[in-house]
Amino acid sequence: MSFENTREFVDRLKTLIEEDNQQGVAELLEDLHPADIAEMMEDLTMEEAKFIYRLLDGETASDVLVEMDEADRRRLLRELPSEIIVSKFIDFMDSDDAADVVADLDEDQQREVLNEIGDIEQAGDIVDLLEYDEDSAGGIMAKELVKVNENWNVATCLKEISKQAEEVDEIFYIYVTDDDDKLKGVLSLKKLILSNTNTKIANLYNPEIKKVITDTRQEEVAEIMDKYDLVAIPVVDDIGRLKGRITWDDVIDIVREEAERDYQMVSGITGDVESSDKVWPLIRARFPWLMVGLLGGIVSATILKTHGDSLSKVTQLAFFIPLIAAMAGNVGVQSSSIIVKTIASGVKDMETPTRKLLKDISVAFLTATAFSVLIFIYNFFTAGDLRLTYAVSISLFIVILFASLFGTIIPLVLHKFKIDPALATGPFITTMNDILGMFIYLGVASLFFNLG
Amino acid sequence: MSFENTREFVDRLKTLIEEDNQQGVAELLEDLHPADIAEMMEDLTMEEAKFIYRLLDGETASDVLVEMDEADRRRLLRELPSEIIVSKFIDFMDSDDAADVVADLDEDQQREVLNEIGDIEQAGDIVDLLEYDEDSAGGIMAKELVKVNENWNVATCLKEISKQAEEVDEIFYIYVTDDDDKLKGVLSLKKLILSNTNTKIANLYNPEIKKVITDTRQEEVAEIMDKYDLVAIPVVDDIGRLKGRITWDDVIDIVREEAERDYQMVSGITGDVESSDKVWPLIRARFPWLMVGLLGGIVSATILKTHGDSLSKVTQLAFFIPLIAAMAGNVGVQSSSIIVKTIASGVKDMETPTRKLLKDISVAFLTATAFSVLIFIYNFFTAGDLRLTYAVSISLFIVILFASLFGTIIPLVLHKFKIDPALATGPFITTMNDILGMFIYLGVASLFFNLG
Repeated sequence: MSFENTREFVDRLKTLIEEDNQQGVAELLEDLHPADIAEMMEDLTMEEAKFIYRLLDGETASDVLVEMDEADRRRLLRELPSEIIVSKFIDFMDSDDAADVVADLDEDQQREVLNEIGDIEQAGDIVDLLEYDEDSAGGIMAKELVKVNENWNVATCLKEISKQAEEVDEIFYIYVTDDDDKLKGVLSLKKLILSNTNTKIANLYNPEIKKVITDTRQEEVAEIMDKYDLVAIPVVDDIGRLKGRITWDDVIDIVREEAERDYQMVSGITGDVESSDKVWPLIRARFPWLMVGLLGGIVSATILKTHGDSLSKVTQLAFFIPLIAAMAGNVGVQSSSIIVKTIASGVKDMETPTRKLLKDISVAFLTATAFSVLIFIYNFFTAGDLRLTYAVSISLFIVILFASLFGTIIPLVLHKFKIDPALATGPFITTMNDILGMFIYLGVASLFFNLG
Repeated sequence: MSFENTREFVDRLKTLIEEDNQQGVAELLEDLHPADIAEMMEDLTMEEAKFIYRLLDGETASDVLVEMDEADRRRLLRELPSEIIVSKFIDFMDSDDAADVVADLDEDQQREVLNEIGDIEQAGDIVDLLEYDEDSAGGIMAKELVKVNENWNVATCLKEISKQAEEVDEIFYIYVTDDDDKLKGVLSLKKLILSNTNTKIANLYNPEIKKVITDTRQEEVAEIMDKYDLVAIPVVDDIGRLKGRITWDDVIDIVREEAERDYQMVSGITGDVESSDKVWPLIRARFPWLMVGLLGGIVSATILKTHGDSLSKVTQLAFFIPLIAAMAGNVGVQSSSIIVKTIASGVKDMETPTRKLLKDISVAFLTATAFSVLIFIYNFFTAGDLRLTYAVSISLFIVILFASLFGTIIPLVLHKFKIDPALATGPFITTMNDILGMFIYLGVASLFFNLG
């Protein structure tokens, strides 16, 4: 079952640490999974965390460090001498985790740490991994994997695997390479143990293998692994040599991060915050888009000011300002988030551009018609002035049409220029459509009331 | 590499089907992965899809069916006779996929299909799985797994695994049970092949095992597997008997679906739509929240109407309606989405309720202060009337404070009453805060202008 990280537990731990009771702390942590210890660390001070790390063995300490919150980890590492970072953590890590840790250090410390690593092969692996863009397949892969030569037989393989397997947490697949280290295919451990020991590997492996290249974008890697239900995927270089592998736990993080980024964008939040964060990060994450909203509000106010006469002559016009703005905003957010999701899903679109545009216009047209008819009926029975009834309905119609098209087109344009289309969801599109809405509303109204 | 589902490919396929060229179609599909065939099916008519299914062997056909879009699958199954469903699909499926397919059928067809299944054990497995709530661990687990008795030795195990493994796609872990079928621990295939054949399993397995109970919620299963980096997790019943296992590919779907649901909510979309969907589903997904927005706009209009006199006396008041509404909406969406994300992440909150509330109020207070000062400065230099300057700033201050607190509190209350808190993000909170904003704005203004 999952460990419950209770307030009582943390309090007890804090007391024991204060009393410098090493044995008590060690006993309390004994049965905990590294992921649980990492979760609990978030509630401790830096000094308390260091106390705990000193008590943990290398294997556990490095697992806890990997699971820790990134910002906390960076702060901790900055305070530790290079030899401790290596002997307590790096020595026990897989190459991908080690490379992540080293990448977090500043340049001088990086060099120190790399020179401190005794195992030259491991140091080399880390240096290799640091070369790749951190969002590419090369940047998230691990060098540890189990591979066998296509010319071996099952018995040789099993012996070789016993040797290689010590360094690999979970095998998943056995990769088959030729003498040039080029990836030829894949073999499951299951198939291997079910085969006769004299069988040659060349007759067993499956050459139909999904693989990615070191510079494949990590989102594409996630998509491929998800689509083909792969628990691990091999990474090759441009000439097909096996360089590493990416496992499912890396991919689940990518899927989650991607989804969260889009969610934050549409909510108008910059940066990854939770309500348990401190006041300052929360404020920093909220201000940028609120600032955009404020400026948009000022522009709207300016538009309304230039129609000051009309508004003072026909006060009722002001009543429907929130309605027009709200509909423009909601329609815009819907359109933009639908198109952003479609772009993100990477589904090859089979529709021709013309058909696509026609469909978008139909949806916008039907939506605009439905809601302007509804507000027409409402106003017809409640507003005294028929001109107001017409003005509101006609502007709502035009506003919905434009808001919807803008919501679709702007993300597409951003995407075309390689800018994250999610930027145009949420407050951006609401602000834009608010301004647009006011402009259209007062423009239409002035036709009906012969104003301006 | 990933298969590119191009327009040309689909067109060629459609032509071949029209010519009834079975061999041509078979050749075209030969090298394709079932996931690719499923993706392509989305662009075909029901008749074309059936033509293809007839050509595929059972293994491939059932894999394609599993990967297919759910709605399309349901439509296809409804047209097929029970014996075809069984002989072409169910017979080749894992129990969890088979149960999903059977669950999609109507009751009569379910009974027919279940009776048609020759393998009584498989039929029993499916019936068992159908008992569980589809969002629970029991509902997503598969019955297929590899298990060994704690009293066996390595040699017996390897023999037994060869037998069991035929039914299991990927082994991942070997589960160890006692004579009562109670789960005792787990053994990696790696450890097994690296051990002496005479060793007893009891001396090899790891008893520290993460497991879930059949009625654990699927979100919690995903959380545990993600936190502890488990590629598969065993499912036990209330007295600890091993019932099935859940693998990582089920979990990645849960993570994605959960994220998408929240994204849709905050965007004001009901249902899972993409821009490639047809016009009618797109409209149906957009109307409900637009309707809420329209009603909210009407309420705002009513509030403004009751202050009609004030607005006609002080026209400038109307200029800042969009600004107040926009800030209220944006602040509310930010607050609600931050708290919804926190609730969803299931992080145990270590803060006391009082401290939490104090922090929320500080964030709201600082935000409110910052933006009302900014708009004060702007209005001080541009608006002629100092009363207007005061009225706008003071109401913006109160509006941000309330919008922020409402945004946080409403999702918490919904969650308390077991309603999805994400309901209160997006258009719901913007609409509510628009209304609140108008109310506060005109209330404050009337104090300054002695109106009403």
